Amino acid sequence: MNSKKKFAVVLAGSGVYDGSEIHEATLALYAISKNGGEYEMFAPNIDQYHVINHITGEEMAEKRNVLVEAARIARGNIKDLKEFEASNYDAILFPGGFGVAKNLCTFAFKGPDCDVNPEVETALKAMHEAGKPIGALCIAPALIAKILGKVEVTIGQDAGTAEAITSLGATHINTGHGEIVFDKENKIVTTPCYMLDATIAQIGEGAENVVKTIMAL
Amino acid sequence: MNSKKKFAVVLAGSGVYDGSEIHEATLALYAISKNGGEYEMFAPNIDQYHVINHITGEEMAEKRNVLVEAARIARGNIKDLKEFEASNYDAILFPGGFGVAKNLCTFAFKGPDCDVNPEVETALKAMHEAGKPIGALCIAPALIAKILGKVEVTIGQDAGTAEAITSLGATHINTGHGEIVFDKENKIVTTPCYMLDATIAQIGEGAENVVKTIMAL
Repeated sequence: MNSKKKFAVVLAGSGVYDGSEIHEATLALYAISKNGGEYEMFAPNIDQYHVINHITGEEMAEKRNVLVEAARIARGNIKDLKEFEASNYDAILFPGGFGVAKNLCTFAFKGPDCDVNPEVETALKAMHEAGKPIGALCIAPALIAKILGKVEVTIGQDAGTAEAITSLGATHINTGHGEIVFDKENKIVTTPCYMLDATIAQIGEGAENVVKTIMAL
Repeated sequence: MNSKKKFAVVLAGSGVYDGSEIHEATLALYAISKNGGEYEMFAPNIDQYHVINHITGEEMAEKRNVLVEAARIARGNIKDLKEFEASNYDAILFPGGFGVAKNLCTFAFKGPDCDVNPEVETALKAMHEAGKPIGALCIAPALIAKILGKVEVTIGQDAGTAEAITSLGATHINTGHGEIVFDKENKIVTTPCYMLDATIAQIGEGAENVVKTIMAL
């Protein structure tokens, strides 16, 4: 018997502007490992919305696959999200990055009217219905609000994003570096990470606070 | 006056099989930030040796640029290594990953007879000649040995790699998870990271031990 808490970490590519934010993803995995948990990674096997040159910010004339690029963060050890089974995990966690709002849903383009990847929606709802905890960093709480509606989350202090979240029926609470919002009823733990102008040490603090809060449940 | 120790962190792309190992790079930056230091990132503006699909391990029919891909780890905040000036930094640090042995030098293909990127060689020699400390994780100590020769380093316990390093005139010392080798004369601090079968928590421990040892100098 293995009594370690097992997290499913859902990635959206590799790189802040078109995928998962690398520091947030890595420091979430680090917090899980350091605090005695285990993790498996997942990503949808779909094309990225686009590919961004991370120096210029411009779109590149390339196609990249979300799962294949996310495997860079996962060192190859990642599964297609369609294989996800809620019964195998104690918690699900979404690092941030624009990929969450471009590949997992289209919040970056359509705000509260966004579409959500069906596999992401199925995975999140299955965990929520099983009463299992959900962690979300940075912009990922907007995805949670889109899917679950009446929840309490934070994305930091950005008024426009907070308003979009509120319009989905969710409650937004402003937070500072490393702070979390813990929606006890729904077992949802969120933190702003790079939705604030943060240092990487502050990202680690936020990720660890989310992970520790989930571990204590 | 800013008295924070400033690290130059040299990247080799983004992803363990063709670039910088993402966990090692991120956790090195995290250790620097958490312990009160500062960093700037650099990478050579060259094509990657190749592009590896991180799920299948196979080569992809693509070209990617080391600096552009490394910018994913750096969130866009990275400079061309040709702009590096040793006088601006207190230390230089190389995370690992195959990119170090494929893009920064060709150790992965030619072992001790490898070629070294001239900008990498210039930057490292300038720091060494200025008596400034050098950190290297994972396979990066092989690059240090190739450039500087008679140094004392560790890449963990891999006999073949250790032998190649010894043939360059360097001394190799076997180490376990999180352990460092500190060559006091040359101010070189090395740790095995994923050259051992490690958890991400152990990567964080090794990176922090390297950074703290350098900070204490």
